[in-house]
Amino acid sequence: MNNTIETLLKHKTIRRYRKDDISDGLLSNILRGGIRASTTGNMQVYSIIITKDQEKRNELCKLHFGQEMVAQAPVLLTFCADFNRFNKWCRQRDAVPGYDNFLSFFTAAIDALLVAQNVCVAAESEGLGICYLGTTTYQADKLIEFFDLPRGVVPVTTVVAGYPDEDPEQADRLPMEGVIHNEKYNDYSREEIDDIYRYKENLPLTRELTDENKVENLAQVFTEKRYIKKDNVHFSKVLLKVLEKQGFMNNEM
Amino acid sequence: MNNTIETLLKHKTIRRYRKDDISDGLLSNILRGGIRASTTGNMQVYSIIITKDQEKRNELCKLHFGQEMVAQAPVLLTFCADFNRFNKWCRQRDAVPGYDNFLSFFTAAIDALLVAQNVCVAAESEGLGICYLGTTTYQADKLIEFFDLPRGVVPVTTVVAGYPDEDPEQADRLPMEGVIHNEKYNDYSREEIDDIYRYKENLPLTRELTDENKVENLAQVFTEKRYIKKDNVHFSKVLLKVLEKQGFMNNEM
Repeated sequence: MNNTIETLLKHKTIRRYRKDDISDGLLSNILRGGIRASTTGNMQVYSIIITKDQEKRNELCKLHFGQEMVAQAPVLLTFCADFNRFNKWCRQRDAVPGYDNFLSFFTAAIDALLVAQNVCVAAESEGLGICYLGTTTYQADKLIEFFDLPRGVVPVTTVVAGYPDEDPEQADRLPMEGVIHNEKYNDYSREEIDDIYRYKENLPLTRELTDENKVENLAQVFTEKRYIKKDNVHFSKVLLKVLEKQGFMNNEM
Repeated sequence: MNNTIETLLKHKTIRRYRKDDISDGLLSNILRGGIRASTTGNMQVYSIIITKDQEKRNELCKLHFGQEMVAQAPVLLTFCADFNRFNKWCRQRDAVPGYDNFLSFFTAAIDALLVAQNVCVAAESEGLGICYLGTTTYQADKLIEFFDLPRGVVPVTTVVAGYPDEDPEQADRLPMEGVIHNEKYNDYSREEIDDIYRYKENLPLTRELTDENKVENLAQVFTEKRYIKKDNVHFSKVLLKVLEKQGFMNNEM
């Protein structure tokens, strides 16, 4: 097992950070590694916004549902699908961009997410901790306002980075055969579902979560408490409206 | 600079592969590293389909617009946003899943893409070459048919992997300041756009591309030849129809 795969295998999400800053040199190396990620047609249709300013991080902490690590960690990276720069370049070169549609948004989102993961791997290889903020898509409209993002730009994920101030247990994962399919998609039988989720359901953490949330089982923690339909529907509407507003829903010629 | 960041910095997309197989042990290590990527709420709402069978790769080669490396490289990995497994688990536990909406699709797509990039980094750290296939989203409907993917599953990207049979020049990237913003989004002036794209526009490869495509400049290669509006609009419709069909567009309560 080489160092890189060891780094990947050791990944833990970090939610408590020391105050220590990440040096400019280190951050720059991490980002240089990050932007080497594959990108559609070498268009690099993404942007990364670095937030270090404490006041801005305090405000962003509120926007990210009060997750304290946003204010605590020294660096926040907001990864955006970005066709604005590319479109401007096209227009300056008498080329007419046709990137105001859903496919183009999704292409740019892929670019942004591959870079984000590369940045996280680079950061962890240097002993930093990271945490992704799923709240980015929920609050895309408010983040667009906060960062004053022009048409063509949509935030798709955010990464908190800094030196860890905790050493949590590594999160469990489903057994490999639960997520990997050989040659064809193996649609799951009832028995297979039971097998795949057995280990997770028997963890002490699962008992804590079901007790704390006063539900019968772990699945209900997700459906009734953590990722509930009402919120998903609400934030789906927000996100689709954002795509419209940022100019990615002109899906007719 | 540590080994991992060096691996990231050395990334090259590989389009010609040796016939040599990737051993099961190596592929397994790479995937084990891959699935350690961050995942929303530890739900792991993705699946990875491994295709090694030569006949299947030949068929997939056609679906991926005849890109020869699909038939040539020993392993093809199709990364899918997958709520099917999670939904089945919920239903078996008397939990009512509310994941048939756009937000949930996007959440699952993020999960799948972070794993994909982790897998690519792991593969490259072991001397393998990789190439992402952007054709996955264009052909999502046909890939769903090919793999017989149930509701809740949408392919979002594909990675070709194998031992390189070429050593191409590394692709250029825009200067860092072109894609990174400090504290606020710096919307680009005309001069900044010229500066950001100058290096790329002056590369010998750019001249080759504009000559070959008989256009005036590199931007027109993209807008008139490679990523043209008509195709983008067409594939936007395909992808949105796929999301509908796979059960991700119920955005009302």
